[in-house]
Amino acid sequence: MSTSTKGEETRLRILERAAPLLNRHGFQNAPVSEIMRVTGLQKGGLYNHFASKEELALAAFDLIMERVMARVYETHNQHSSPLAQLIAHIELIGHGHTSMEGGCPIANSMVESDDATNPALRARVKNVLERWRKYLAQVVANGIVQGEIRADVNPDEVATHVIGTLEGGQLMSQFYGDRGYLRRMTDQLLAFVDEKLRAPA
Amino acid sequence: MSTSTKGEETRLRILERAAPLLNRHGFQNAPVSEIMRVTGLQKGGLYNHFASKEELALAAFDLIMERVMARVYETHNQHSSPLAQLIAHIELIGHGHTSMEGGCPIANSMVESDDATNPALRARVKNVLERWRKYLAQVVANGIVQGEIRADVNPDEVATHVIGTLEGGQLMSQFYGDRGYLRRMTDQLLAFVDEKLRAPA
Repeated sequence: MSTSTKGEETRLRILERAAPLLNRHGFQNAPVSEIMRVTGLQKGGLYNHFASKEELALAAFDLIMERVMARVYETHNQHSSPLAQLIAHIELIGHGHTSMEGGCPIANSMVESDDATNPALRARVKNVLERWRKYLAQVVANGIVQGEIRADVNPDEVATHVIGTLEGGQLMSQFYGDRGYLRRMTDQLLAFVDEKLRAPA
Repeated sequence: MSTSTKGEETRLRILERAAPLLNRHGFQNAPVSEIMRVTGLQKGGLYNHFASKEELALAAFDLIMERVMARVYETHNQHSSPLAQLIAHIELIGHGHTSMEGGCPIANSMVESDDATNPALRARVKNVLERWRKYLAQVVANGIVQGEIRADVNPDEVATHVIGTLEGGQLMSQFYGDRGYLRRMTDQLLAFVDEKLRAPA
């Protein structure tokens, strides 16, 4: 029992140290030598815990996403009104609280896995995006039911508009190393929510 | 003279064949073996025309951008009103007329070169983005001078908002292989131009 626990701790420590590196270099392209350097382990040590570099990279992606999701649900539960939940969600992502060293793991992975070169990563990213879209569409649908959001709004279209705008802002901000780009796009998005989604009082 | 011309033709043919591959795989990460396959040349043949794989990749990026810029200026010159130029520009990019196999070369390269691993590509991308921003800001500024665009609009902020929104849409569309995402974000952007930028008649 205690050996397995120690193994799990080591596994988690490896993932925590490798995650920012993988996010920066690419989940597929980060060199094993760099993973060895940041974890302080030899190849043998790494492969004790992961069958392959690919398995390690996917586990690191999962860990990052698990933590982002936890922040998303925490923020969600701080509000009971769907419109307030939507606004708080946009502010959470748009103010960079879920981004990390190397930028947005989703934007990075979307580009890295947009073709057939990395089907396992692509499946992970697709799954995360689908959950994100469904979450946002559900919040918007709840807002319509509760009369906070206009009934002629299409929840799916709003969900992809929010995601696309936030990811575009992330892309600009991480390229320029300036959060101002994401912040300005977030402001436009909040104005969009206020002017196009909010039901007339 | 004729030898040099033939050399230039071969060089251009290599770039034209390698460009979609580089855009899809990454300007840095595409394997030489794949470049050899699509061009039908051996390593020696390639290195006759380019000092290195990096030089070939940068030249391919330049060629792609040169052709996109030509489309941008062509579209610009079809209109004399700045507001019409802005709308035509958004439609040109937003309807995917400048994207290519493997998605948007700018979005791809922004992610690929957002850190210190590829300074030469990063400098190229930065230069293209600056030209794009300046172009859009100038069109908006002209629109203000001519009274077509509201005087309280900030041209730089509009420029980055347009670029960020289009790139976010590109990212979604190329990931899902569905142009609908970019088209919907383009529609929102055109609504933004109409409602937030257009000067009251």
